[in-house]
Amino acid sequence: MLLNCDLGESFGSWCMGMDADVMPHIDLANVACGFHAGDPIVMSQTIALAREHGVRLGAHPAYPDLVGFGRRSMRMSAEELRSSLLYQIAALDGMAASAGTAIGYVKPHGALYNDMMADSAIRETVMAAVASFHRPLKLMLLATSEQAHHREAAAAHGLELLFEAFADRCYDDTGHLLSRRVPGAVHGRERMLQQVADLLENGCVTTDTGKRLSLSADTLCVHGDNLEGVAAIREIRALVDRRAAS
Amino acid sequence: MLLNCDLGESFGSWCMGMDADVMPHIDLANVACGFHAGDPIVMSQTIALAREHGVRLGAHPAYPDLVGFGRRSMRMSAEELRSSLLYQIAALDGMAASAGTAIGYVKPHGALYNDMMADSAIRETVMAAVASFHRPLKLMLLATSEQAHHREAAAAHGLELLFEAFADRCYDDTGHLLSRRVPGAVHGRERMLQQVADLLENGCVTTDTGKRLSLSADTLCVHGDNLEGVAAIREIRALVDRRAAS
Amino acid sequence: MLLNCDLGESFGSWCMGMDADVMPHIDLANVACGFHAGDPIVMSQTIALAREHGVRLGAHPAYPDLVGFGRRSMRMSAEELRSSLLYQIAALDGMAASAGTAIGYVKPHGALYNDMMADSAIRETVMAAVASFHRPLKLMLLATSEQAHHREAAAAHGLELLFEAFADRCYDDTGHLLSRRVPGAVHGRERMLQQVADLLENGCVTTDTGKRLSLSADTLCVHGDNLEGVAAIREIRALVDRRAAS
Amino acid sequence: MLLNCDLGESFGSWCMGMDADVMPHIDLANVACGFHAGDPIVMSQTIALAREHGVRLGAHPAYPDLVGFGRRSMRMSAEELRSSLLYQIAALDGMAASAGTAIGYVKPHGALYNDMMADSAIRETVMAAVASFHRPLKLMLLATSEQAHHREAAAAHGLELLFEAFADRCYDDTGHLLSRRVPGAVHGRERMLQQVADLLENGCVTTDTGKRLSLSADTLCVHGDNLEGVAAIREIRALVDRRAAS
Repeated sequence: MLLNCDLGESFGSWCMGMDADVMPHIDLANVACGFHAGDPIVMSQTIALAREHGVRLGAHPAYPDLVGFGRRSMRMSAEELRSSLLYQIAALDGMAASAGTAIGYVKPHGALYNDMMADSAIRETVMAAVASFHRPLKLMLLATSEQAHHREAAAAHGLELLFEAFADRCYDDTGHLLSRRVPGAVHGRERMLQQVADLLENGCVTTDTGKRLSLSADTLCVHGDNLEGVAAIREIRALVDRRAAS
Repeated sequence: MLLNCDLGESFGSWCMGMDADVMPHIDLANVACGFHAGDPIVMSQTIALAREHGVRLGAHPAYPDLVGFGRRSMRMSAEELRSSLLYQIAALDGMAASAGTAIGYVKPHGALYNDMMADSAIRETVMAAVASFHRPLKLMLLATSEQAHHREAAAAHGLELLFEAFADRCYDDTGHLLSRRVPGAVHGRERMLQQVADLLENGCVTTDTGKRLSLSADTLCVHGDNLEGVAAIREIRALVDRRAAS
Repeated sequence: MLLNCDLGESFGSWCMGMDADVMPHIDLANVACGFHAGDPIVMSQTIALAREHGVRLGAHPAYPDLVGFGRRSMRMSAEELRSSLLYQIAALDGMAASAGTAIGYVKPHGALYNDMMADSAIRETVMAAVASFHRPLKLMLLATSEQAHHREAAAAHGLELLFEAFADRCYDDTGHLLSRRVPGAVHGRERMLQQVADLLENGCVTTDTGKRLSLSADTLCVHGDNLEGVAAIREIRALVDRRAAS
Repeated sequence: MLLNCDLGESFGSWCMGMDADVMPHIDLANVACGFHAGDPIVMSQTIALAREHGVRLGAHPAYPDLVGFGRRSMRMSAEELRSSLLYQIAALDGMAASAGTAIGYVKPHGALYNDMMADSAIRETVMAAVASFHRPLKLMLLATSEQAHHREAAAAHGLELLFEAFADRCYDDTGHLLSRRVPGAVHGRERMLQQVADLLENGCVTTDTGKRLSLSADTLCVHGDNLEGVAAIREIRALVDRRAAS
């Protein structure tokens, strides 16, 4: 079970995220590509930091919306979305290659991620865009009850998927995350660790209605925005390592 | 003698340049990379058009200044400039590769081009940035009386140069272009064709003081902004082809 | 019946619209405020041109989306939308005041206009924002079968409305415009002039189903993107003037 | 002696500055206007916070350079600069007026401030722009040995100046600030408080060469980026208040 985290979300003079503290504990770094966060220097530094810690790089492309941090849905045409994705992926990929490393996957950011999970036309466009990149890259999706269906759709593009689960978010019965606005949507420390253990040992989560839901996750999404987040990452890392060693 | 032209300078709903009319007559397309012009769709379309006509692609990176069209000097640090160049080059390169083609060179745009020619520290940064790209790319410079010196500086980076001359611009005795604000700085049709012929046959131009100046140019810069420009390109193309055939 | 037209839609080095040809023939200039088009110089020049021709100025604010020209819906929060509207309106208003003139109304642009007409929550936010401006400004809405309802909602904000009709667009039975993608959505010259005459004489349009629909319009929206548009404006202007004289 | 501080420098999801901690202790809030920092919501909130604490508002316009935080010189034409300044000033002014308050002055930001102090042509453009605003606004300049000359130049525009001095920066003999890169350019706590006291009591500073330099300052620039800055502001505030009471 790999840990993935959004990194490189600073921009110009504005800092965000405790990247240096997070990087030693994760496996996959989702790097912002300049459309919602990240600028060329931040991208360069994030690539170098990931390389130093042997962390695999992925592109974290978004809607073109700096002031909204890519968190606002934008109704882009398929061609706009396709080209925008390729642009962002290519920018990070070429910078990584020039730094002696490479990206391995793509994880859409924010509203684009949510729209991709909710709307099959957008998902198709994202899949086609990633599949059209000149090197094979994996696409990261939310692990839901529709995993098999998503895998099939991706296969039609010759595309391999990575499925991610969330440590600290409560699931509904379809495997989608409860909106952050719903009380109980974000777990505290204990329920978070319990959910991680459940995923590691049983490939299952308990939903908001108490149902048991099978989720086959390749990676867990963790957050390094603040000290609490970094502490949680360390605990999850320890849990995962213990399990791997056993 | 190759003809190069700035293309892909539309942006969103705004059109600029007669790309479709120019592309059949040139050898090298300098493609805007999104910082002063060009957006992901425009870049995609320009790549496709160049591919269709067998035109070689080059990145045309600029200062980050859409509203100023990259024509205003910005005092960027070496690290800012280096990263910004890599970002733009990588974006175009990866999009080109995904369209089944490739870029071969870099020509800085506008104020960055002028600053690079005037300031050796900026030129060094540009050379280092292009040389650090993961694939070998050539860098296009203005052919001046300092060509040998520039070639040497580039060689220290393992970088190959392309030198360009201008068909329609009057040169001073050092091989730099007279500012457009100076009367006589831009040639009319006849003097333009004469200057092209002189470059093709003698590798020389006549400067504003009447001196003869040797310039070894690999490529001629032409402009496709309007009907007149396209007509001039056709005439220059004919001249070059006639000379090549003789 | 006033003629209104979107103007000041150039940006930096990119030109759009035949503003100088349109301005002599219209009454209301909807001026882009920098979020989807227009930059400070373009705004300044558009203000001066309007002043020269005695054309009243209105702010034409949009979603923050230059590359998409404000034509893509963005899910902004009410507070984001409110502040963004005030910012754009204030910028144009203060520039106009500094040029010795003033703006009189607000017409949302593109996707924001459509969203405002389709979604009452967005319309409420727009109304509240315009009403909160420190000087009274009118808000321009599409004249539909819901005019009375819209007027009431505006009155609750102490806001006066301007209703616009379209000369060249086919209406459905609710008074909304047929999508441009529907065949017959955009009238040719003759049907356009007929619709204008019908609005002037009868305050009516004939919908796509052949129904007669009453629309009380204060202003007609005309387009000055190209020579055809300018020619249409002259014909509509003549029609309106003839009618006013009779 | 008034205390002025740059505020409203957050942008979108990125926070900068301890505005809420600073506002109770200052007299003048220099508010970013969206070109180097600040977005419409941040501007709105900063206006509200200033109003709550009875702090006077000033526009803090900059070069259009978000990623560079307005700290990089850009060679703008006079007309570009003039329009860009009016746009930013107008945006903040209209938002302030709509919140029931008003701006009273303009302080250029970052590289524009430095360029204005160093280059009389740019200073002239800034003065003309501020003077052309439809309401009288003061312009804040650095208090140097050229104060009288600057006051005269401003008077020709009918413009009143505010002169600011720095608490924590070492001066050279012409009254300009030593570059931050020079050792000793930024004072520690004690020398800072000493310089403030010297300015309050004697209208003088001691320069890097030990000379005594008369500076007539209307306001002191303070910084609220971090806890240390906020602590310094409290101490300076206390000093100023004690002096005013005596």
